[in-house]
Amino acid sequence: MKQSVGAKTLLFPTPVLMVGSYDHAGKPNIMNAAWGGICCSEPPCVTVSLRKARHSFNAILERRAFTVGIACEGKMAEADFCGIASGSATDKFAVAGLTPVRSDLVDAPYAEEFPVVLECRLLQTIELGIHTQFIGEIVDVKGDPEVFGADGQLDIMKIKPLVYDPSHQGYHGVGPLLGKAFSVGKELKTSAVLKNRINQNQAS
Amino acid sequence: MKQSVGAKTLLFPTPVLMVGSYDHAGKPNIMNAAWGGICCSEPPCVTVSLRKARHSFNAILERRAFTVGIACEGKMAEADFCGIASGSATDKFAVAGLTPVRSDLVDAPYAEEFPVVLECRLLQTIELGIHTQFIGEIVDVKGDPEVFGADGQLDIMKIKPLVYDPSHQGYHGVGPLLGKAFSVGKELKTSAVLKNRINQNQAS
Repeated sequence: MKQSVGAKTLLFPTPVLMVGSYDHAGKPNIMNAAWGGICCSEPPCVTVSLRKARHSFNAILERRAFTVGIACEGKMAEADFCGIASGSATDKFAVAGLTPVRSDLVDAPYAEEFPVVLECRLLQTIELGIHTQFIGEIVDVKGDPEVFGADGQLDIMKIKPLVYDPSHQGYHGVGPLLGKAFSVGKELKTSAVLKNRINQNQAS
Repeated sequence: MKQSVGAKTLLFPTPVLMVGSYDHAGKPNIMNAAWGGICCSEPPCVTVSLRKARHSFNAILERRAFTVGIACEGKMAEADFCGIASGSATDKFAVAGLTPVRSDLVDAPYAEEFPVVLECRLLQTIELGIHTQFIGEIVDVKGDPEVFGADGQLDIMKIKPLVYDPSHQGYHGVGPLLGKAFSVGKELKTSAVLKNRINQNQAS
């Protein structure tokens, strides 16, 4: 029997997304967001949710662009700092020792030090409550040469992305591969096909 | 220098969400979705994105309700099966050996075997492209007694949620705690305050 925890934002896992933008003065800013995810395959889209008080909020609205960097184990303190400090008072890139790189595709910067970045064009915003959801079309994904596997694809075990635990406000890593999707459930699928055939035979 | 991968849905990590609903005939159905995440803290909201062809699509629209179970390491094959089979042809709960439980708060079922479930009232749908985003208000979160820690909170290391890798279609686990959020970046925050004071003193 399951026990109630109440109406809370408890999802496992959530990501640690480093959202890059230029403010009205052209200063690069970067914040840490765990509320987001992929929301569409075609066009490829990603969401991040921001409070209106965030310095990044108007920055993204004005330039209709943002980037999403993937926080990694080796840059945990830097990623966390970007969620504590405010870009209105601080040059977060400078203090955290992060290098702002201007996207060649959208009007937003990203930090060179995070191994993967999604460059996004703002498609729409959805007012939800204390958060506004920003939906961005992913116009490109870029990765450091070190995080590609021998097959030429991004390798999650080389990226070492952070996982955020909203229950205890903890950062975790990603463990090794346990199984392949669209594969480990096939045995059950086969048994389902067989059961359907048996049912149809019994019915006919 | 980062290398381009193209405009793809590559985010790390993404979750493995088990979306429960009743269809028009009242049959419980459950599907596997990696496109989703938390999108608002107050009201607490979660998103899942579905294609129109999915059996769950109209089911959720009709009853304005769904559940989100957290797939876990011990139920990987069952979770994967729910992403391979279609509820239109198969009783996925029966074939996968999952037990449908009627939510006492929303008009949707969940599988008893996944350790955590979010019960959701459909707030709105957003048309994005081949996916439609369903935004649900989380009216309660429930967990098995075994996945609570000594502090009475849900424990991610007991839940053992699956992580989905969209680059290689792999399921991974979550590693141990690496650091606490709003904490491990504090040292940089302190140095930022000091730098600001030095700058102000120099300017004055």
